[in-house]
Amino acid sequence: MSGKGGVGKSSVTALLGGDLTKKGYQVGILDADITGPSIPKMFGIHAQVDLVENFFLPPEKHGIKMMSVNFLLGNENDPVIWRSPVIIRAVKDFWVKCAWGDLDYLLIDLPPGTGDVPLTVMQSIPLQGMIVVSSPHDVTVMIVKKAIQMAKKVGIPVLALVENMSYFSCPCCGQTTPVFGKSKVREVAQGAGIPLTAVLPLDPCLAMLQEEGKIFDYSLKEDLSALLGRREEQK
Amino acid sequence: MSGKGGVGKSSVTALLGGDLTKKGYQVGILDADITGPSIPKMFGIHAQVDLVENFFLPPEKHGIKMMSVNFLLGNENDPVIWRSPVIIRAVKDFWVKCAWGDLDYLLIDLPPGTGDVPLTVMQSIPLQGMIVVSSPHDVTVMIVKKAIQMAKKVGIPVLALVENMSYFSCPCCGQTTPVFGKSKVREVAQGAGIPLTAVLPLDPCLAMLQEEGKIFDYSLKEDLSALLGRREEQK
Repeated sequence: MSGKGGVGKSSVTALLGGDLTKKGYQVGILDADITGPSIPKMFGIHAQVDLVENFFLPPEKHGIKMMSVNFLLGNENDPVIWRSPVIIRAVKDFWVKCAWGDLDYLLIDLPPGTGDVPLTVMQSIPLQGMIVVSSPHDVTVMIVKKAIQMAKKVGIPVLALVENMSYFSCPCCGQTTPVFGKSKVREVAQGAGIPLTAVLPLDPCLAMLQEEGKIFDYSLKEDLSALLGRREEQK
Repeated sequence: MSGKGGVGKSSVTALLGGDLTKKGYQVGILDADITGPSIPKMFGIHAQVDLVENFFLPPEKHGIKMMSVNFLLGNENDPVIWRSPVIIRAVKDFWVKCAWGDLDYLLIDLPPGTGDVPLTVMQSIPLQGMIVVSSPHDVTVMIVKKAIQMAKKVGIPVLALVENMSYFSCPCCGQTTPVFGKSKVREVAQGAGIPLTAVLPLDPCLAMLQEEGKIFDYSLKEDLSALLGRREEQK
């Protein structure tokens, strides 16, 4: 979750899913961003979903099962101009009417905001916890604090805060620039009582791999799976 | 509009509003992003809105009138956990029950997605046109194409495409890096029949001014007001 858009919720979800898979866990990703789905493109999946006895069979890549509205569209550029009750129905169906099978982790990629979809997910799916994604940008931090407040009000534990696009290292001279302002991850995490943090750079290599649908191939320096707490040990 | 979050809709709205104001136009900004409002913070306004005869009196800075949900909250970090019908009511009230007065331009900053709020704005406010904001990132471009498709379906002309965070120039060595991938603004605009385009860099100075609530002081190299078509001449 983030509250803010474009900070890397989908990237972090995909990278965490990849990390867990490489460590031997069975992972599913539920793309709850119905009007702005990013997960299929990042993994390079252009599948159409199959139905078996009224259940969606989630397409699979690298052993990760995924469900996204893009698997239901004729063309991935088609807009989903749905009123909110229909969007909520879709998200609930991705949970209830999807043959996820036996998973160790089901990661849910939320849309921006603190509106209907995050609220529905928090109230109707039994969640172990939230990982909140932010950037160092002050405007972003304000909106991310709203999301943290929301999780608290609804009673979902916030496991970790990930600061994405924290800095940029020039590939030419190595100079590190805090493009979106000074890092605020510790300050925000401490203020909100969030136990774990991680910092990710703004990395053109990641953008390139995402463009090519190869986010699974990104070599992550950070141990994102550690953010989930005790179960992170190699299986 | 964008479809995607975090590409700079609010930055472009604020910069365009500033540009038009400096050219002598009377400008209003309606912040339709109810769960993730950015406009007040960028301009450094922490006002509470006044009510006169059941009409909101939009707070003003640099001569720009603004209405945002943050002016209704006790604390700007408070989340707005509203179901969709309430969010839509708020956006409609910002239009109908707000004493905008005599404006040359009312700019509307939309939330991400192609759901309820963009649809409501397109169907219930008489719009001159849309300016679509994107980044070069392929995942973003796919989602932005959905937004362009939506505007077409609803019959709103898309006036221009702005590619934000198009490149980063290292402040140390001057090296320019396309951090989110190769620019695609011309290709997308041509493909969608969008007449005008603009390209903005990823500029740490802009992020800094936004943090300080001083986006009005940013010296814009691009003539954003030209994107509105014929009325751009100095008043």
